[in-house]
Parts: sequence; structure tokens; C-alpha cells
Amino acid sequence: MSEPESDPDASLESQPDLADDAMHRFPVPEFENLPDDLQERIADETDRAGFTPNVFSAMAYKPSHFRAFFAYHDALVEDTALEREEIEMIVVAVSGVNHCYYCNVAHGALVRIYADDPQLADQLVANYRTADINDAHRTMLDVAVKLTERPTEVEESDLAALRDAGFSEEAIWDVAAVTAFYNLSNRLAMFADMRPNDEFHTLGRE
Amino acid sequence: MSEPESDPDASLESQPDLADDAMHRFPVPEFENLPDDLQERIADETDRAGFTPNVFSAMAYKPSHFRAFFAYHDALVEDTALEREEIEMIVVAVSGVNHCYYCNVAHGALVRIYADDPQLADQLVANYRTADINDAHRTMLDVAVKLTERPTEVEESDLAALRDAGFSEEAIWDVAAVTAFYNLSNRLAMFADMRPNDEFHTLGRE
Amino acid sequence: MSEPESDPDASLESQPDLADDAMHRFPVPEFENLPDDLQERIADETDRAGFTPNVFSAMAYKPSHFRAFFAYHDALVEDTALEREEIEMIVVAVSGVNHCYYCNVAHGALVRIYADDPQLADQLVANYRTADINDAHRTMLDVAVKLTERPTEVEESDLAALRDAGFSEEAIWDVAAVTAFYNLSNRLAMFADMRPNDEFHTLGRE
Amino acid sequence: MSEPESDPDASLESQPDLADDAMHRFPVPEFENLPDDLQERIADETDRAGFTPNVFSAMAYKPSHFRAFFAYHDALVEDTALEREEIEMIVVAVSGVNHCYYCNVAHGALVRIYADDPQLADQLVANYRTADINDAHRTMLDVAVKLTERPTEVEESDLAALRDAGFSEEAIWDVAAVTAFYNLSNRLAMFADMRPNDEFHTLGRE
Amino acid sequence: MSEPESDPDASLESQPDLADDAMHRFPVPEFENLPDDLQERIADETDRAGFTPNVFSAMAYKPSHFRAFFAYHDALVEDTALEREEIEMIVVAVSGVNHCYYCNVAHGALVRIYADDPQLADQLVANYRTADINDAHRTMLDVAVKLTERPTEVEESDLAALRDAGFSEEAIWDVAAVTAFYNLSNRLAMFADMRPNDEFHTLGRE
Amino acid sequence: MSEPESDPDASLESQPDLADDAMHRFPVPEFENLPDDLQERIADETDRAGFTPNVFSAMAYKPSHFRAFFAYHDALVEDTALEREEIEMIVVAVSGVNHCYYCNVAHGALVRIYADDPQLADQLVANYRTADINDAHRTMLDVAVKLTERPTEVEESDLAALRDAGFSEEAIWDVAAVTAFYNLSNRLAMFADMRPNDEFHTLGRE
Repeated sequence: MSEPESDPDASLESQPDLADDAMHRFPVPEFENLPDDLQERIADETDRAGFTPNVFSAMAYKPSHFRAFFAYHDALVEDTALEREEIEMIVVAVSGVNHCYYCNVAHGALVRIYADDPQLADQLVANYRTADINDAHRTMLDVAVKLTERPTEVEESDLAALRDAGFSEEAIWDVAAVTAFYNLSNRLAMFADMRPNDEFHTLGRE
Repeated sequence: MSEPESDPDASLESQPDLADDAMHRFPVPEFENLPDDLQERIADETDRAGFTPNVFSAMAYKPSHFRAFFAYHDALVEDTALEREEIEMIVVAVSGVNHCYYCNVAHGALVRIYADDPQLADQLVANYRTADINDAHRTMLDVAVKLTERPTEVEESDLAALRDAGFSEEAIWDVAAVTAFYNLSNRLAMFADMRPNDEFHTLGRE
Repeated sequence: MSEPESDPDASLESQPDLADDAMHRFPVPEFENLPDDLQERIADETDRAGFTPNVFSAMAYKPSHFRAFFAYHDALVEDTALEREEIEMIVVAVSGVNHCYYCNVAHGALVRIYADDPQLADQLVANYRTADINDAHRTMLDVAVKLTERPTEVEESDLAALRDAGFSEEAIWDVAAVTAFYNLSNRLAMFADMRPNDEFHTLGRE
Repeated sequence: MSEPESDPDASLESQPDLADDAMHRFPVPEFENLPDDLQERIADETDRAGFTPNVFSAMAYKPSHFRAFFAYHDALVEDTALEREEIEMIVVAVSGVNHCYYCNVAHGALVRIYADDPQLADQLVANYRTADINDAHRTMLDVAVKLTERPTEVEESDLAALRDAGFSEEAIWDVAAVTAFYNLSNRLAMFADMRPNDEFHTLGRE
Repeated sequence: MSEPESDPDASLESQPDLADDAMHRFPVPEFENLPDDLQERIADETDRAGFTPNVFSAMAYKPSHFRAFFAYHDALVEDTALEREEIEMIVVAVSGVNHCYYCNVAHGALVRIYADDPQLADQLVANYRTADINDAHRTMLDVAVKLTERPTEVEESDLAALRDAGFSEEAIWDVAAVTAFYNLSNRLAMFADMRPNDEFHTLGRE
Repeated sequence: MSEPESDPDASLESQPDLADDAMHRFPVPEFENLPDDLQERIADETDRAGFTPNVFSAMAYKPSHFRAFFAYHDALVEDTALEREEIEMIVVAVSGVNHCYYCNVAHGALVRIYADDPQLADQLVANYRTADINDAHRTMLDVAVKLTERPTEVEESDLAALRDAGFSEEAIWDVAAVTAFYNLSNRLAMFADMRPNDEFHTLGRE
């Protein structure tokens, strides 16, 4: 559909190879058949990570959803009152209670890197209540997990607890937005049976 | 930030008024303070519906999220192998089990309109298993509700059941994508305590 | 069995017609075959409502249960320390968590009428915690929903909370009695797959 | 309020003494202050059992509810397509999953007596799936417990299973009716903290 | 394998007879085929109780597990900061929420005997929250049941509550150890479908 | 209490150092204050692993429980019809649903080593249903997780499924025994807040 035409040789050299087994329940498309903007985004991510994270290969199954998914993701991490480390802590705590293999492992690596803590991801996957985190982050994860598991029970008092813990109004919104997005993301990844790249299992563990 | 400058009088006349009580837990911004693209989208929606659906007023709290949220929504309804009526059925069944007041009522109206059935929304909010729907839609909602409530238990057999019911591979992906998105949407709406416009309670009931 | 013999013409004119589809899983009897006391009660209800609520048609399947069910219902609404509006609020909050289609819709109409509030039923079906109700009613519904979902956890402190909210001892008993009865009623209606009359979907919405 | 006037001496001799601790959360009235019909029913029950079952003392707190409750109970056991033993099996299986102390113990005694089996009640309180019952009763309790715990999931196939197990249409209705009534009864007893008489713990155990 | 050789006649007389139906899902071995140490322990228990508790017959299926199971059990009751009555209260409350027939009945008897209370077991099987126990034991069972049902939610505050109720650090550990062991024991008994001896149903009830 | 007296210098050199933070909620004893048999076991384990696994340091809090716990563990891994790899798969799947941080990580390392698979542990912690395992192991984990989460629902058909998958009667017992023991172990570790050694996070990942 899209064609990366200029300088095909260079392009051939650097072309990411989307893993066939990035997910088990839908076919992964060929990189060269993807629209230009997807190719570009995937190439960038591959450059940055040193490998193509499988969520990009999987979401490429449907380009319109690829665009929407990563645009939302980008908004959450680029326009935020939270630290990136906080975002990844929420993602892993939420994915842990939802039991999402892809997100536990891929965002587990990100938690290890952004929080510079080789054990935190395994703690959050198991039980954020006994993770080595400060009180503000405990409150943050209390709310994120409650919104995930028992959203009817979220009340004004939960927002007040976040306020008391020092979160701004925008940061409180962002806690909810990240939580909500990974309730989407976990379900997509689990439905498609997305598989984390081998690299994610070990990144940031040393 | 953005300024709708040309023909201010006309603009003043037609300017939507964002309801202060579109949500209870975050402030609703003033329409005239919104970036151009949000103003434009809200004006369009207001024209189409005859009123400004409160989700637009609420999401305007954070423009970057407004854009991401509605871009995802638009991708789901515009590039899809599902009928719009099927999308709205999924939304209401998912929102019913998640107990989301805003989505039950606003998408309940859409189900009534798109399915041309004044009772279907109330059926789906209560229990899709006893709704007046065909067998293929029953299978579709079985999977959507399972992915919502017990995502770890979704297996290849669930996709096979959708295939047997006549859904294409892309339609199966779309069932999951709509389900996943409304697991995001329900949680955002419940966290912010979004309130459906009065109009949604009665639209499509006659 | 019973025969309304005097003035057959008049009787023919006014005889309610029990809807064949008042429930899906048991046959609905013919009005003229019902015992006199059931005919009388149904005729009265039909006069009052302008239509025969399907619960009367459905319960007529077994006259001894019809009598017991409505006698209990009548005791709950006629000899009570609660306002009728409060009773219907409990019914809809309980039916919402139990996901009873018939009761959500039929008692939803009653909540709208008795509370004179066109949105309250939809709020209570979704989540009583974000309904527009006063603090005493919030406490009342906290207890009703707890007794419905987690009855082992009801303790003296729940009764104390009702007392503090201004409920008399008899009113506290009545909160429990209404809650308990609709845990019966929801289950009967769901088992028989009772269907609310079309009228209930719109009553009290204007 | 009501006065049992004729032959006061005889009446004084035989008057049941309602146990003060029949329930912990509401006061138990004095027998002599009860309306005639309640006195008569309680006297009859006391004669039959050799003691006054505490549910009569407790329900006497509100005579209109006493009448409705026992009228419903009587309809269920007197006009039924089920054996009394089957009714009590349903009651104990339902009360076991609802964790109702009063009903476990009082109806446990009735199961032992009607089924002439000193262990069956303890089996049903714990787990009907491993109780010593025949296949038809297993199906009966599968449906009763499903209707208790997950009523949204009851479907036509559950009624078909009962039909295949030999239950008539009326018997199927009765299974649901008994189950529904004890979902009421369990909640009333748990809310009021009704206490079974000492006698019930041992009746039928020898 | 092991042979009790001296005075075979006497030995034949006193040899316990392991009930064939001590459990339903695995074969019960013959007493005379058991290793000496198991024979000795079973003979001792039979002497003490007057009958062979079925858990000994059942666990004898695999002698290495028999030894480990009873050694752990013995450590819990012999080296403890808890009263034996407290241990049995924990066992029955835990078994009640886990719905273990064998443990409800066998340890129900032990609760009646050690607490010298003929009703306490039936109370604990149903709902420890309404059992006739003191405040310290209420706290003890709150923690035991939480550790059983929602172990992720156990926090330092639960240990603090036990401390405030007068439990020593060792006693707090013991509360957890007993709870944990019966989460093992309940699952083994339920998996093998162990059946309590008739005697346990009535022991301590008079 | 016990004193390792001969050759104190040698002993001083090789003495394991029990980590103070092996658990957060009880004090970890000093190695030199432990009874001889505990010292010996801990020294052996330390030699084997190259570090002292924290469960040994933690369980040493109460020597009688240390002995019982590891004797049971040893029986499960030494006298078994299962492969060690199968045992560790059960442990991690069970610990994953119970959300036990210690067991996820420590036995996660053992799964990686015994199954010679660097990703299997992360898969099992998240969701055994999408782990890369054969059909027999899928059945094995279906039963282990059911016995963990919903033990009342385990039935003869579950044992039959294991038989059909090729498990012997003894192996079926062992599946249940391992599952049951880690329902104990998870709860002890979670109650005491045991912390896995740093080494376990990375062992077997390369």
C-alpha cells in the first residue's frame, strides 16, 4: 500500500523484520507491506530499542488501530503531570492484576529502566502492596488497582487521597488515564496473545 | 489558546455551551478557551446531535487526551468489519457489566437508534444473555463480556466460536478492539463521574 | 376454574389479556382460567396501570405463589416506616447489582414516578454510589447492596449507620425486608425470564 | 393489640415463651402482646416441634411480615411438585453458599429428618457437589446454587437439564421458587442475626 | 512392608480397620500393609479417639506425605503460643470459607470439645463474624479468613491489630501458620474427597 | 540453643549470614543461635545455591515449623511420580494466581532451570493458559489452579482428565499435594512478607 521508494538499498538494509510470532492469534504483516507512517514509526522504535517491540508488529495488523493506539500512548507519556517512572509503575501494577503476559514483561523492563530498580517490576506484578515504593506511589497504585478491579467503588475520597499525597488535579486525571488505557491494552494483548520479545525478559535486570 | 477569530458574531451565536456538570470530579473548560480543533469537533458533534454530548465537554479537560480518545473512537467506528449496530451492542453489554452510568445511557441511546429497537439497550445493560439478539450476536457478546470480566480465560476457542458464527478475522479483531476501548472508556467516565445528557435517557425510546 | 359470571358482556370488554410473552420459560395462563381472586387482583392492577404488568401474568402460572408473592409485596409497601420512593430506590439498586432486566425496567419506572426524577432509575441501575441522592439514602443503599452482595459481612455497625442516618428501628428492619424480598423477586424473574411491558421503559421519563 | 380472651388460665399455662435471644439485632416481642393469629400459629408450631423455633419469635417483631413470610413458606411446602426432602435439600445447599447460620442449622435438622440421613445436612452446608445424593438431585442443586450465586448465567439449558433429570415444569418452577425464597430468608436471618434454637443442632443426628 | 511381629494374636485383635470409604477418589490401603511408624501412629490415634479418624486412613495412601502432614500438624499444636481451642477455631473458620466437608465436621468436633461449646462449630462454619467469641478471637479470625480469601491484602496493620488484641509475635506467626496449613489441608481433603467419620458429626454436641 | 562447637574458626568462615531483610514482618534469627539441625540444613542449602535462599532464613524464626515445612517440601520433591520440572511449573502457576512475590521469583528461577526455559516462569506467573507447554501440562495446571481458586468445584472429572493426559494415580495425588502445599507456602510467605534474594530474579534467564 505505502512504498518507501527513495534509496531502496539503504531501506532494505535497515528494514525491521516483524516477528511472525509477535502474537499467536492473528497474522503479523510484512514490514514492507505497511503504510509509510507505520514503517517510519516502527523503524524509529527499532532504532531506539535495538529490536522491534512485538506490540508494534502486532498492532500493524490493522493500521488504523496502530495509529490510534500509539497516538493515545504517546499522549499519555508526552503530555503528563506524572513522571515516566510513575506511568510505568501504574502499567505494571494494572497488568499484574489483569494477568497480561505481554505487558508484565515489556513494561516490567521499562519499570526497571525508568525507576532504575531491578526488582520493582517483579514486586509490582505480584502485589504492589508489598513493593518497595513510597507512600505517594502506594496511594497512586491503590487508586489505579481499584479503578481496574472495582471501578464502581471509586469515589471522591480516592481523588482526595491522591490530592493529599501531593498529586495535582492533572496528575490525578493522568493516573486514571494511564490506568484506563492499560485496561484497553491488556485486553488487546491478551486477546491477540501477544508475546513479549526475549529482550524484555532481561532488560534492566543487571 | 486557540482562537476562532473570523466572524465572531456568527461564532458567538452557534458556540456550544459545555455543561458545567458534564462530569463531577474535574472542572469542565469553557468552549472559547479550547484549541481550534477541539472547538471544531465539538461544534460538529453539537450540530449532529442537537446538543453537546457530555463526553466531549469532559474530555476537553485535557486536549491531548481528547484528541487521542476520539481518534481511537473514530478508527473503531469508521474502519471496521462490524456493523455500527454491533459496535454499540458491544459497548452497552460491556458498560452494563462494568456498571458505567455514562456509557449505559449515552450508548444505550445509540443502540436504540442504530438497532432501531427501543428495548434492546435496557436488555443489554441488564443481561445480554436474555436480550433479543440473534445467535451470532450472542456469541459476539459472550466473547466481549468474557474479555471484559475474565480476560485470562479467553482462548483460541473463543475466536473459533466467532469464526463459526460468521465473523471474519478482521471482525474478530474489531470485537476485541471495541471491547478493549470501552474498558478504557468506562473507567475514565466512572473515574471522572461523567454524567449523560438528559437527552440520552429518552432518545430512540418512542 | 373461577368464573366471573355476572354481566358477561361488561366482563368481556374489560378482561385483561395476559401477554403470552410476559415470560419466556413458562407458559402464561389464560385470564379466564384463573381463580377469582387472581382475576380480581389482575383486573385492579390493570385498571390502575392502564396495562397488565407482566409480573402478574407470569406469577399467575402458579396461583398459590401469586397470592404469597403479592401478599408479601403488599405488606412491604403498605405497612412500612419507609417512604414508597425509598422502597423503590432499594428495589432498583438491588436489581441493578443482581442484573434483573424485569425489575430494572418495571421498578425503574416506579422510581421515576415516586421520586419524580426522570434520571434516578438509570443512575441506580448503574451505580447507586454516584446517584443524585442524599446522604441518608446513600447509607440506606450501602446497606441494601451489602446485604445483597456480601450478606456475611453485614454487622451491627451497618445498623448503627442507618440509625445515625435517621432511620428508626422499624425502618431499618424494612430496609432489610425490602432488600431480601427483591433478592427473591430478582431470582424468580430471572429464572422465568420475565419481560417488562413496553410501557415501563418510558413511564416517567418525560 | 390482639387479645386471646377465652379461658385465660389454660392459655397462660400453654403460652410459648419467645426467646429473648432469638435474634441479636432487634427486640423479640412478648408472646402475650402478639395478635391472635400470630399467637395461634406460634402455639401450633410449638406444639409440633416441642419448642418455639426462633424464626417465629424473630419474625413476630413485625406481624405483617410474619404473616407474609409464613404464608409464602406454607405455599412452597404445601402446594408443590417437589418432595419435602427435596425442598429442604435446596434450602440447606442455598443457605450453605450464602453462609446463613440460622438456616444451616434449623433446616439442617429438617434435612436430616425428612431425608432420614444424619450426615446429609453437614454435606450440603459444605459442598453439595460431594454430597451423597442421586443424579437428579445433583442437577436440582446445580440449578439452585447457580440461581443463588450467578443468576445472570441461568439459561434455558438449565431448565432443560432439570427436565432431562425428570422434573416436571411445575417442579422446575418450584425449584426456583424455593431457591428464591431462601435467598430472601437467608438475608433476613443474617441481617437480624437470628440464632437457631439449641434443639436444631442435634435433632435428627442420632 | 513393615511387620508388627510380636504377639500377632493380640495385634490382630487391636488392629485398626481403615475405612474403605475414608476418601472417595483414591484407594485406602490395608492397615497391615503400612510401614511400622504409620501403624503405630494410627494405633495411637485409634486408641485415643476410640475410632480411626479418616484423615489417617486417607493420608496413608502415600506414607511419605502421611509423615510430613502429621509432623507439620503436630508442630502446630505442640509448639505454639496459641491455646488449642484457638487453633481449632481458626481451623473451622478457615474450613468454613473454603467449604471443606471433612475439616468442617472433624475439626468442628474438636472445637466443640476444646472450647467446651456445643454450638461454636456450627457458628464458625457459617460465619465467624456472628459467632459467640470474644474480641481478641474476632480479630484472630478476621486475619485468618483474610489470609485465606484475600492474601494479597494482608498488611502490617493486620499484624498490628493482632498485637493490640494481646497476641505475642510468636502467636501472630502461629495464627498465620495454622491458617496456611489448613489451606493445604482443606485442599487435600477436598481433592481426595475425604469423608468424616460418623462419630465426628455428633462428638461434643450434648 | 544448639552449639556448633568443634573447630569454631572453620565454622566462622563458612557460616551463612541470614539476611536481616529475608522477611519484613518478623525478625530473622542469627545463624549461630539456631539449633544444629537447622544450621546444617542451611549450610547445605547455601553450599548448593551459592547463597542462602531467604525462605530458610525466614522459616528459622520458629525451628519446629522450619523442620516441618522443609520435611514436607522434601517429601514432595523426593518421593514423587512427577518430574521436578512439573512440580516447579505447578508451584509457579499457583503462586501466580495467589500473587505471592517470594514464590513467583524464587520458584520462577527453579522453573527456568529445571525446564531449561528462560521465559516459562514469566508466562506461568501471568497466565498458564497461554504458556508454551504441552497438553498434558495444560491439564495439570488446569487442575492445580482450579484446586487453588475454586476447590469446591473440583470433581471426579478433573481426576479423569489427568488420567486421560497420562498421569498415574500417584501422580494425580502428587499434583494435588504440591498445589496444596504451595497454598500453604504462599500464605506464609505473604503473611511474613518474605523477600526473594536478588539472585533469584536473574537465575536461569540467560
